[in-house]
Amino acid sequence: MSGLFLSFEGIDGVGKSTQVEMLREHLTHLGRDVVVTREPGGTPVGRQLRSLLLEGSPDGAEIGPRAEALMFAADRAQHVHQIIRPALSRGSVVISDRYIDSSLAYQAGGRELTVGDVRTLSMWATDALLPARTYLLDLDPAGALERIGRAPDRMESAGARFRQRTRDEFLDLARADPERFVVLDARRSVEDLASEIRRDVDGLLDDASRVDA
Amino acid sequence: MSGLFLSFEGIDGVGKSTQVEMLREHLTHLGRDVVVTREPGGTPVGRQLRSLLLEGSPDGAEIGPRAEALMFAADRAQHVHQIIRPALSRGSVVISDRYIDSSLAYQAGGRELTVGDVRTLSMWATDALLPARTYLLDLDPAGALERIGRAPDRMESAGARFRQRTRDEFLDLARADPERFVVLDARRSVEDLASEIRRDVDGLLDDASRVDA
Repeated sequence: MSGLFLSFEGIDGVGKSTQVEMLREHLTHLGRDVVVTREPGGTPVGRQLRSLLLEGSPDGAEIGPRAEALMFAADRAQHVHQIIRPALSRGSVVISDRYIDSSLAYQAGGRELTVGDVRTLSMWATDALLPARTYLLDLDPAGALERIGRAPDRMESAGARFRQRTRDEFLDLARADPERFVVLDARRSVEDLASEIRRDVDGLLDDASRVDA
Repeated sequence: MSGLFLSFEGIDGVGKSTQVEMLREHLTHLGRDVVVTREPGGTPVGRQLRSLLLEGSPDGAEIGPRAEALMFAADRAQHVHQIIRPALSRGSVVISDRYIDSSLAYQAGGRELTVGDVRTLSMWATDALLPARTYLLDLDPAGALERIGRAPDRMESAGARFRQRTRDEFLDLARADPERFVVLDARRSVEDLASEIRRDVDGLLDDASRVDA
């Protein structure tokens, strides 16, 4: 049986982990071996790199943007090496909660590196492994802010601008690769979303089994 | 005053640290600010990355070749960011005991990565910062083995083959970039070598001061 690599993307709070869990149940029910994983920090080495980045340099020096990007890329390289590729080789379905597109969306416009830099590094780190399908759960963060029913304070406004920019980056990435991305309106009901994702994954599995046969 | 970046390369035991120290004394005597540094592990973050690589993954998993190369590159990126570039901006002379060429010579032919891969990664990590001059202390490791005066055992033979291959890689790198490299026969006397290096560095400083004037 062929392995299948899927990822879920989107800003925090759009319901990725719920959809990942529902899809895992569906696939297990179909008798497939499923590996659910996440980035960043999908492996012990990756988590050590993460805590190095979060704690910062022991001497208080700033970790430079290139060192930081290389450490994120090393986390992803190890995740692919240790978890994702072996599982795909065994014929499992791998579902990753965040993958390369999160790096591109969140690091875009930050510090001194371009999206192109981050993409090149990630593609090298993974030896160009991309998911067969990426489900982008899309939500307008402005809507979330409006629903609080009062004028946002300064922190809320800054957070909203950051989420807005990240959401726009995700949508740009999806537009640039419509074969891989499925964009879903995260305001729809959990069951409605899960059902559309199931149908799409079933189609991918049918295609794969026709290739296998 | 302009900064000046120099590196020393060569296999273990050729006398790099002695020459680095003698050059530091000469430059200090000339009234220059000198920063002596080394790779790998030139910064606290770099040393943490090194120990992560040496200890391996906490779960016993192999660290993949791409993750490993990215972590070496992160060590170098932080070295350049935190030590080398700031010192050059202050007008110091920076002397690094090993730099990019050691990665190329030692990682060449190893595992699944090419010299081209390692070079591209290092050039990105450093934003293409190369030394103005690289002193390669060259020694034939076969000569060292002959001097022990008996047939080498199996470990000694394997070690000698590795040092031979690394030496050849260093010589190839030097041939490919004769403007940057000065190849020195490490069998010459310490004082003789130091004096040739001093003359060459004095020439570089004269050129730089003519540009500054």
